[in-house]
Amino acid sequence: MKTSFGPNTLIFPTPVWCVGSYDTDGRPNVMTIAWGGICCSKPPAVTISLRKSRYTYENIVRTGAYTLSVPGEHHAAAADFFGMASGRKTDKFKAAGLTAVKSDVVNAPYVAEFPMVLECRVIHTFDIGAHTQFVGEILDVKVDASALNADGKPDIEKIRPLVFSPEVSLYHTVGRQIGKAFGIGKPLMPDRD
Amino acid sequence: MKTSFGPNTLIFPTPVWCVGSYDTDGRPNVMTIAWGGICCSKPPAVTISLRKSRYTYENIVRTGAYTLSVPGEHHAAAADFFGMASGRKTDKFKAAGLTAVKSDVVNAPYVAEFPMVLECRVIHTFDIGAHTQFVGEILDVKVDASALNADGKPDIEKIRPLVFSPEVSLYHTVGRQIGKAFGIGKPLMPDRD
Repeated sequence: MKTSFGPNTLIFPTPVWCVGSYDTDGRPNVMTIAWGGICCSKPPAVTISLRKSRYTYENIVRTGAYTLSVPGEHHAAAADFFGMASGRKTDKFKAAGLTAVKSDVVNAPYVAEFPMVLECRVIHTFDIGAHTQFVGEILDVKVDASALNADGKPDIEKIRPLVFSPEVSLYHTVGRQIGKAFGIGKPLMPDRD
Repeated sequence: MKTSFGPNTLIFPTPVWCVGSYDTDGRPNVMTIAWGGICCSKPPAVTISLRKSRYTYENIVRTGAYTLSVPGEHHAAAADFFGMASGRKTDKFKAAGLTAVKSDVVNAPYVAEFPMVLECRVIHTFDIGAHTQFVGEILDVKVDASALNADGKPDIEKIRPLVFSPEVSLYHTVGRQIGKAFGIGKPLMPDRD
């Protein structure tokens, strides 16, 4: 028996990503979003959706660039703060005691202390409704050396990203590993002659 | 010190959602995606990105509708299977022993046994590159009554959705609650006069 919630932006999980941009004075700003996701493999691209009223919106329209910094769970309070304060009034990096580093590939800053960073160039802008969707081509992904596994790949259990639950507005951690994708479902594959 | 991974669809977390659609013969199909996310609050909308070669792609182009069924962690193997097999050759619902239910609001089926379901009408289609992005207006969200919290809202700790890690191709569970969004960052907010 399912309960109906009507038209609603309600799905689990959604990400917690911090969007870095520069304002007209070249000041770094960062805001937190949960409305976004990977949208293409070639070119590698990720979307973020923003309201036009956001300071970050005008920054990205002008610079054509943004970064995504992925907070680890011990930066949850900073990430939450980045989603509440406005860069119009507040230097959010300074208030959170975090460091803005200029990307070496796009005109946008990222959060040095966060373990995973994507640097993106805007290749499409789509007006959906209350939100505008920016499609960013991912030009580089940078991950803390301390957050890599034994094979030198990013390890989610070391990065410890946050999971956001819309509607109830909660943050959770990532839990235990269940298994390998393109692996644990193989026993269900029909035999092929 | 950060390690560079170049242009790459590499970010954490990404979701594990199963896309339901009907083929030309009215047979239900379901495939798993991790490329997608909420993209607008008004109208409430969620994107999914598919390669044109996918059976689901042609289904959605024809019907203008899809569902997203969110698997709980005990359905991880079925979700993984849904991402590997093709509906052109296999009745995936039957092979996984799961039930296709026709949505009462759009022309698409969902997975009855999964705890959370979104029913979507395509309002935009954007070609990005290798992937095409469908923007679906969310017409209804349905959640198992057993997966609600004491306030009658969806409880991520009962739904137990999966988290996908690109590049390393792993599934993880959702872990412990860290805190309230629009809450735990308040101590960082500057005082306002």
